[in-house]
Amino acid sequence: MKPLIRTILSTTVAALCLAGSVRADELRDTAVEIFKPLPSTIPAVADNPITPEKIQLGKALFFDPRLSASGVFSCNSCHNLATGGDDNLETSIGHGWQKGPRNAPTALNAVFNIAQFWDGRAEDLKAQAKGPVQAGVEMANTPENVVVTLKSMPQYIDWFEAAFPGEDDPVSFDNMARAIEAFEATLLTPSPFDAWLNGDDGAMSDDQKAGLQAFMDKGCTACHNGINVGGHDYYPFGLIEKPGADVLPEGDKGRFAVTETVDDEYVFRAAPLRNIALTAPYFHSGKVWDLKVAVQIMSESQLGEELSDEEADQIVAFLDSLTGDMPEITYPILPAETGDTPRPTAEIVPSE
Amino acid sequence: MKPLIRTILSTTVAALCLAGSVRADELRDTAVEIFKPLPSTIPAVADNPITPEKIQLGKALFFDPRLSASGVFSCNSCHNLATGGDDNLETSIGHGWQKGPRNAPTALNAVFNIAQFWDGRAEDLKAQAKGPVQAGVEMANTPENVVVTLKSMPQYIDWFEAAFPGEDDPVSFDNMARAIEAFEATLLTPSPFDAWLNGDDGAMSDDQKAGLQAFMDKGCTACHNGINVGGHDYYPFGLIEKPGADVLPEGDKGRFAVTETVDDEYVFRAAPLRNIALTAPYFHSGKVWDLKVAVQIMSESQLGEELSDEEADQIVAFLDSLTGDMPEITYPILPAETGDTPRPTAEIVPSE
Repeated sequence: MKPLIRTILSTTVAALCLAGSVRADELRDTAVEIFKPLPSTIPAVADNPITPEKIQLGKALFFDPRLSASGVFSCNSCHNLATGGDDNLETSIGHGWQKGPRNAPTALNAVFNIAQFWDGRAEDLKAQAKGPVQAGVEMANTPENVVVTLKSMPQYIDWFEAAFPGEDDPVSFDNMARAIEAFEATLLTPSPFDAWLNGDDGAMSDDQKAGLQAFMDKGCTACHNGINVGGHDYYPFGLIEKPGADVLPEGDKGRFAVTETVDDEYVFRAAPLRNIALTAPYFHSGKVWDLKVAVQIMSESQLGEELSDEEADQIVAFLDSLTGDMPEITYPILPAETGDTPRPTAEIVPSE
Repeated sequence: MKPLIRTILSTTVAALCLAGSVRADELRDTAVEIFKPLPSTIPAVADNPITPEKIQLGKALFFDPRLSASGVFSCNSCHNLATGGDDNLETSIGHGWQKGPRNAPTALNAVFNIAQFWDGRAEDLKAQAKGPVQAGVEMANTPENVVVTLKSMPQYIDWFEAAFPGEDDPVSFDNMARAIEAFEATLLTPSPFDAWLNGDDGAMSDDQKAGLQAFMDKGCTACHNGINVGGHDYYPFGLIEKPGADVLPEGDKGRFAVTETVDDEYVFRAAPLRNIALTAPYFHSGKVWDLKVAVQIMSESQLGEELSDEEADQIVAFLDSLTGDMPEITYPILPAETGDTPRPTAEIVPSE
């Protein structure tokens, strides 16, 4: 190759690389305004200092089926940490084979959501943790029975004392919830998207970056933003066009049940999208199994826009980059029951 | 102290120690004739060479609720490795909230049982593993649906190929069972009793040793012997005196259903007693929650003898020495479902 041509060529290559790098930087500059990578440390939560003892206790409780009246269901039954932190069912099956009203959200990274449940009715994870334990269609237990159960096992008493030192009555329903929240705060899943946000250009494929660009250009980020790519605020489902009644059943008015404000009819917390590729089926109704179809429904109902096939594929590719490394969890060994432990009951008590 | 007295004293002490040591040795000599400590390595199983790949696959399958039709139950639901390898229920709750006919036995050390199930109807763990997956009251699935489910997830295909190298069709129902057996063969729980059998005099308390002595003197070892302190042969329940119909329901004739031999009416496999303190409630009916009561019932029904309160307590103390160190298990991360994965169904299909 002649020196001149070589010089021109290498200048061009350098310019192209620079352009590529400028474009990558621009995309990242925009993205970091909208999103936020996961932190490298366990986040602090309100009114609940997190300690190793609390995390260990919370892990035991999270996996303990004796928090349910029947002895069949633990938190992990519906928020299974082996399968993306949810149960991959339309809606969960609980006590007496009853079906829950809404799809179980993932417990992974849930600590970053503005509030818990699809309608945000629990302000944080410790409030959330008390819900399913008592819900008749889920674990069907009572706070009193939970406390009697936990106090019947000396090992649990020791663990609660270590997790809540100096308290007069450490084994309480509130402290059960606090410990579970502490454990859940550790369930972070750093993903290729985080690596890319943190500066690793190679962490996302070109398709994933194109998908991110489309995700921002189309306006998905109006609702799906922040650290959890969603989960930070409430929006009407069907803003432009209501999806069919299978996907948006008329009877479930979402956040209206919490605020009793007409404006909140069919309003839900924007779904956090981390690990979304692992947590089909989608929406609060759990009726859509295909992520691409879910993306298309969202685009039409929320943005009034039909995505091209390529755009939908690219956005799905971007969403795949939100699948993170799962936390490594040593399966807990739970305390053995004693003669004082209340017996499990499969009986279905009609709600009042 | 004067030299002579010192000499006498130390001679006496030495003689006492010797006597104690002789007694300990005698007890151990008798015990090692009857029992056998757990091995320090994973046991070989028939027709199923155990490899790390097979163990890893088996662990994933053991914890995968998608082996059940509903997507709710995994092997671990009823053989929960957090709670002694069983579910601490009278009888397990399965598909459609149906109750199983018999108490779920522990999966721990089960590899050493002569055969599996209370009636020994499965000759080994790989035969056993196929049962609950298909039982209408348990996981209510079919081999065909299991295979389609597993083949729908590329990660599972890779894992089966690694576990069964060179096979034309590695993802099969039989290989699922083989992998689960391989994992279960690792579920060994070395206990203080093992340490004592292996020569560590201090591993068992005096009460536990007295309990062992009583256990042997009374004749419990006629049925409860070998490596699993039971689990090695079949015996009539109520040999001397039938317990009440709550404990021994008339309708369940035990091994008779397998052999159709009149001699096998109300015959069951002697319960393996390792970790028995963790696996209440007791007997195939799961009707007795208190281990001491279970011991008393056994003594009366099988040996025709009423134990003193002290004897019963000592035998329970001995049984406590069979509670072992639980295997440390890293909770598996399971493959994500795909569009080809069959959807879970909660529907109850009446059995033919």
